[in-house]
Amino acid sequence: MKLQLLLTGNELMAGDTIDSNSAMIAELITDYGWRIGKKVTVGDNLQLLENQIRSLAAECEVLIINGGLGPTVDDMTSLALAKVTGNTICEHPEALAHLTQWCEQKGFRLNASNLKQTMLPAGCDIIANTRGSAVGIRLTIGNCLVLATPGVPSELRAMMNDEIIPLLKRQFESDYVQTQRLAVFGLGESSIQEMVNAAYPDWPDDVELGFRASMPVLEVKLTTYGQHAGEKLGEWRSKIIGLIGDHLLGDMPLTIAQAVIATAKQHKLSLCTAESCTGGRIAAELTGVPGSSTVFPGGIVSYSNALKQQVLGVSESSLASEGAVSETVARQMALGALQVCKADLVVAVTGIAGPDGGTTEKPVGTVWMAWGSRDDLRVEKFFLPVDRGLFQTLVTALGLDLLRRHINGIPGRPELMTRRRA
Amino acid sequence: MKLQLLLTGNELMAGDTIDSNSAMIAELITDYGWRIGKKVTVGDNLQLLENQIRSLAAECEVLIINGGLGPTVDDMTSLALAKVTGNTICEHPEALAHLTQWCEQKGFRLNASNLKQTMLPAGCDIIANTRGSAVGIRLTIGNCLVLATPGVPSELRAMMNDEIIPLLKRQFESDYVQTQRLAVFGLGESSIQEMVNAAYPDWPDDVELGFRASMPVLEVKLTTYGQHAGEKLGEWRSKIIGLIGDHLLGDMPLTIAQAVIATAKQHKLSLCTAESCTGGRIAAELTGVPGSSTVFPGGIVSYSNALKQQVLGVSESSLASEGAVSETVARQMALGALQVCKADLVVAVTGIAGPDGGTTEKPVGTVWMAWGSRDDLRVEKFFLPVDRGLFQTLVTALGLDLLRRHINGIPGRPELMTRRRA
Repeated sequence: MKLQLLLTGNELMAGDTIDSNSAMIAELITDYGWRIGKKVTVGDNLQLLENQIRSLAAECEVLIINGGLGPTVDDMTSLALAKVTGNTICEHPEALAHLTQWCEQKGFRLNASNLKQTMLPAGCDIIANTRGSAVGIRLTIGNCLVLATPGVPSELRAMMNDEIIPLLKRQFESDYVQTQRLAVFGLGESSIQEMVNAAYPDWPDDVELGFRASMPVLEVKLTTYGQHAGEKLGEWRSKIIGLIGDHLLGDMPLTIAQAVIATAKQHKLSLCTAESCTGGRIAAELTGVPGSSTVFPGGIVSYSNALKQQVLGVSESSLASEGAVSETVARQMALGALQVCKADLVVAVTGIAGPDGGTTEKPVGTVWMAWGSRDDLRVEKFFLPVDRGLFQTLVTALGLDLLRRHINGIPGRPELMTRRRA
Repeated sequence: MKLQLLLTGNELMAGDTIDSNSAMIAELITDYGWRIGKKVTVGDNLQLLENQIRSLAAECEVLIINGGLGPTVDDMTSLALAKVTGNTICEHPEALAHLTQWCEQKGFRLNASNLKQTMLPAGCDIIANTRGSAVGIRLTIGNCLVLATPGVPSELRAMMNDEIIPLLKRQFESDYVQTQRLAVFGLGESSIQEMVNAAYPDWPDDVELGFRASMPVLEVKLTTYGQHAGEKLGEWRSKIIGLIGDHLLGDMPLTIAQAVIATAKQHKLSLCTAESCTGGRIAAELTGVPGSSTVFPGGIVSYSNALKQQVLGVSESSLASEGAVSETVARQMALGALQVCKADLVVAVTGIAGPDGGTTEKPVGTVWMAWGSRDDLRVEKFFLPVDRGLFQTLVTALGLDLLRRHINGIPGRPELMTRRRA
């Protein structure tokens, strides 16, 4: 099947928005052996849109248009499609029904701008949108199936999965593509590639190995083609899992927090947090997981020394003699949180996120972490000399991973972190 | 000047890499009033590349090609340019000199793969690359200036700034472009557009109004062209600020947390948090801002009822009679946090993030928020029936914005939230 993509939006041309939608579409269709042959991006200009729709549709079987379905005057996909097909735009009853219901459900009043989203090329079909106010548009131009989709990523993803992929599967042949995606934390792409080269110089050509960094998790992807490649995929999946070892979180999609929550539930253990330099991010990651309340009673964000003393019982003398970023304070924070939150396990972090606050002895990037239970508490120093945002991301991920390792009885530390230790 | 962009790379088509280069190019040229009229992306396929170069060059004055200059077999930009111009590729002496020097400097040995990067279309000029081994290519096709650039972002940025923009400024007229970007929370794009339409039907064509949603903040962008448009820009900036009113956070780039921290610093007020359904995200947003420690001692993530009682002093009887998601509990959480954290102001949130835990009386999306000081504490219910992730994002943003409004003495609530109130 020959598929092309047309993206529209001034924000895509002006550099205001980085296009991630086309990557999402590519990823979703790749499981069926389909690929995007060419993609064209234009601003919100009716003439340009018309020309592109006309020329792209003439050279492919499926044209997916993304963007330009919104309520404002610069959203012109519907009008451009009407012009190309020689139709007028008129109120589409199904689109109006959808919009009315959508507004009722959300408690919005229906305004004139919104109503523009119901004006579609005469005779077109709609594509249901379960996540937003704008329906998609389906029509044909010559022999080309044209599908206009919304620019909001969550709406696009749902529409691709629920409507467009099933539709394409009915109309076009798909390949038998099998993919395994593993979620890995603490090993880099080049480390894994090196291990593979060393251990398996005979890695087969027909088992594609790919990587995608989705900070802080690395996705390792294995792909085979053809109905009978399943066994081969399983075999090489096992081999690469052997190399990844305890850095494997599980099958994608999976965040470290999801892995921790699942592991804690399995072992019927509750977790709590005491955070200084991560400022609540570890707790936020944990509570981002639905159902986390069964294993996470809560945590303390003790950013100030006073709060460390007041709520966590950190001693004034330790703060004075060793400083807030120290082994003793990390331990006291952990023990304090365990007592206050009445949890089985804890992770406590105190460090220097920067850009200010570093010293020669304790430079920006220094972090002490304490984790485990009252009777089995580890305390270690790590060193992550990166900018504040990335520091908080990595320390949060590290804290969660240390909990995962503790619960599972894994003795090691993530390789990336120990390589960097101060 | 009519400029178009051709991007090449299989990784861009397969969804493995998200293209940020075209946004970078757009951003760098926009200050001179130049825009990318159209961009086309294709995989590493010689025939496709040739066709696209030919058709794009025929319809513009400048064609920037990005990618395909590397040392591997799938880098084919040079070959495609040679074919289109009817030349052979041959070793370019300046490219060889650059590569030799580059390898010496880096301590690399020059290998056959690298040498491929010196094989350029006969008669072309090179564009210096100070950051990498591949030089750029400059030639003309008909009346079109064609510039081939490397795919590595840091190399591309340097080449754009040091070589290409000066070259374009010599050959083409540049405009005097001025931009104002405002950060707005709580008003949607369509609401603002409607207000503008109603208040200023005479909105001038030469003051471009644009929007960019970077959830939860909306960017409102005004652009003028020409050296004498500055006054006009100021005038219309004031007018739109008048419409946006207390929804204005400030000039971009700005997060709500940054606005809150700046406002708190200005008023010398300290802040604390008591979070249930947002699970630490409000604290994490605040501590994401460098220097937040001067106004944020910390917060309590009281996800369980036990922790609400233990640390925040929420009464057992209120929990039993009214439930954790109630006006009374929100108030008690707020007062408890103020006492424990010894802060001037607080925001406390307790709600039902879902997907489970909702009832007819308190459906998923219900949230009680308490904010302000001990002596001036407001408590209100909001209703945000969206999925868990978006709920947490919006409630976090709302909590921060209520603090900002409180400190600044702004009586209203964000419009988006009140429209949705249960």
